[in-house]
Amino acid sequence: MNNILSKKVGIIGGGQLGKMLIIEALKMGVYTVILDPDPKCPASNIANEHIVASFYNENALRSLASKVDIVTYEFEHIGADILKSLEGEGVRIYPSPKTLDIIQNKYNQKTYFLQNNIPVGDFREVKSPNDIVKACEEFGYPAMLKSALGGYDGKGNSLIKNQDGIDSSYKELGEGKIPLYIEKYIPYTKEVSVVCCKGINKDIKIYPVGENIHKDSILFETSVPADITKDEYEKAINISKDILNLFDDVGIFCIEMFITEDGSVFVNEVAPRPHNSGHYSIEGCVTSQFENHLRSILGLPLGDVTLVKPTVMRNLLGEDGYKGKPMVVGVNNALSIEGVSLHIYGKIETKPKRKMGHITAISDTLDDARKKVSSAYNLMKVISR
Amino acid sequence: MNNILSKKVGIIGGGQLGKMLIIEALKMGVYTVILDPDPKCPASNIANEHIVASFYNENALRSLASKVDIVTYEFEHIGADILKSLEGEGVRIYPSPKTLDIIQNKYNQKTYFLQNNIPVGDFREVKSPNDIVKACEEFGYPAMLKSALGGYDGKGNSLIKNQDGIDSSYKELGEGKIPLYIEKYIPYTKEVSVVCCKGINKDIKIYPVGENIHKDSILFETSVPADITKDEYEKAINISKDILNLFDDVGIFCIEMFITEDGSVFVNEVAPRPHNSGHYSIEGCVTSQFENHLRSILGLPLGDVTLVKPTVMRNLLGEDGYKGKPMVVGVNNALSIEGVSLHIYGKIETKPKRKMGHITAISDTLDDARKKVSSAYNLMKVISR
Repeated sequence: MNNILSKKVGIIGGGQLGKMLIIEALKMGVYTVILDPDPKCPASNIANEHIVASFYNENALRSLASKVDIVTYEFEHIGADILKSLEGEGVRIYPSPKTLDIIQNKYNQKTYFLQNNIPVGDFREVKSPNDIVKACEEFGYPAMLKSALGGYDGKGNSLIKNQDGIDSSYKELGEGKIPLYIEKYIPYTKEVSVVCCKGINKDIKIYPVGENIHKDSILFETSVPADITKDEYEKAINISKDILNLFDDVGIFCIEMFITEDGSVFVNEVAPRPHNSGHYSIEGCVTSQFENHLRSILGLPLGDVTLVKPTVMRNLLGEDGYKGKPMVVGVNNALSIEGVSLHIYGKIETKPKRKMGHITAISDTLDDARKKVSSAYNLMKVISR
Repeated sequence: MNNILSKKVGIIGGGQLGKMLIIEALKMGVYTVILDPDPKCPASNIANEHIVASFYNENALRSLASKVDIVTYEFEHIGADILKSLEGEGVRIYPSPKTLDIIQNKYNQKTYFLQNNIPVGDFREVKSPNDIVKACEEFGYPAMLKSALGGYDGKGNSLIKNQDGIDSSYKELGEGKIPLYIEKYIPYTKEVSVVCCKGINKDIKIYPVGENIHKDSILFETSVPADITKDEYEKAINISKDILNLFDDVGIFCIEMFITEDGSVFVNEVAPRPHNSGHYSIEGCVTSQFENHLRSILGLPLGDVTLVKPTVMRNLLGEDGYKGKPMVVGVNNALSIEGVSLHIYGKIETKPKRKMGHITAISDTLDDARKKVSSAYNLMKVISR
């Protein structure tokens, strides 16, 4: 007998993703416990319990596991080894720490995909500056030096434009203190991502392909459905299915891909969790990525992922030049545009380019949804008081 | 400058309506304080603050008002006089306690509508059993004796089938200890309701007409759009507009109406708040009744109320014969029906016919949405552990 009210879910991380996941849990009456070092993190006031501790604190992770039926996480930079031990002791953790371990190290992730016939661009491990020199000779310029661990929103990436840039990029990323690798630059014409979900009963759901625009390596806009050819669309969907089958895990995954001029599709990276580029699904799809993540880890059937209407999402970042207690201006004007929804994460401090919220517009056409979200976006700012 | 993060909203009542309102507040980063005597009420763990006190406790209501920028309420049975004093002292309370005062007493509500050319059925004040006798002679049988104050979900109503029933109905409703009135029975063929909203800038939004089915005087199902004639639809919308204009207030109102065989439309009663028959709007409309209530009282523009797809909602009531800690069974099977969304309110005790949650289905046709919600409904039960 599946009594949803007796299930407790533990979430490592209480940022905006944890918060939006908990909002779905609240809707369905599911008890949640978060682990986050920040006592005032966005999810802090809505989780039933909050363990204030580091993501690498074994005792705290054990305490979390002891309080709940299922553990999940909202981001990848957590202690996979501890989680693997816990899983070995019988704790249900979704997606599995084994998957997390592969994904957490981007070099390992790419190697795993390469070994399993998932299309990825060329890349090489970097153990010394000489490895960079050799790779650049092979790949040509520009090339992207990346830290294999811990990067996000462009942090941990350094573009090498020519031979003169090798040393400075190597220094920028810590001179080998953290593991590095180098990628051949893919001359993409489109960036897309596919949110997909696998249930405990092996059912899968593939959300529509979203088209992403990044600015300064941070997601700027996602529009759905992506404006790509039917062939590209099918390739993106099929690659996503292959990756879901490869991991054979439980939960939401987001597959970020590049599309090149000749219609080739390459996987850029995979996140084993709800993803910024899937936020559109809250208003845009019958079942959001957060609800489906919750359904999957609870062992419930997955919900319909049909796009209800064309949808465009843009992030609200902390305005440059402002730091401190946030203030959101222009809400009145922005919300006067019909079809626009506002999400403010409740972070207690804004800083330049920090993700403070997002806006979504749905409409009968993608062009109109983009016009709406763009107008609303231009009217709003997150500054400090 | 409208900084949404600096606005605090106080809500009198922390039941399921308060909870669903707070979920919208969370989404937009708005701070909330609830007042509810139950320390474990559904909204207790998600409001930023909770004042545990009676709805009639003046000190507590004053404390609530002092903590927030705007006060609203999730149900009508609260101290309107205290709220009127507070409003007189400058506290912003939406909808106005003046409106609440009229609506709170159903006899006064009906009288007010009658005086303002809003179509209502015949009714008479009841001060003695003799008033009932006289009204029944005039109206015929059946007639409905109602307490003017405090009734909901059929509580406080007593149907008088014939002359012999007069005494027992009078006794059942307290023998005049609470104010009573009597209504001529309206031989309706359909029950409908319209959720509507007025903003501080006088903008109005009228949600689509929903068709309601009650069982044992408790809402059983709402389906949208209502299956009524174009003429009936327009009448229902126009009456709703007239009522919004009459109160000239701020917030969500729900107008419950009867439609008779000849296409006449009569107002049954009005609620100055989000309403059970508007829950469909969470999944069914671009902007839910809860988000629009919040937008209106915050002085923000109102959101698009377009129906995205045909939608049917059914309440999940506590199963007869069970009382105690709730257990929801059948969730797995129910959620295997695509397009079905589950809401569980988080009440810590179930009892027969208590509203414990609701389910909603959206689909391309109303028939299909009803089939889905009906199948899911038949698979689920709220019992006790």
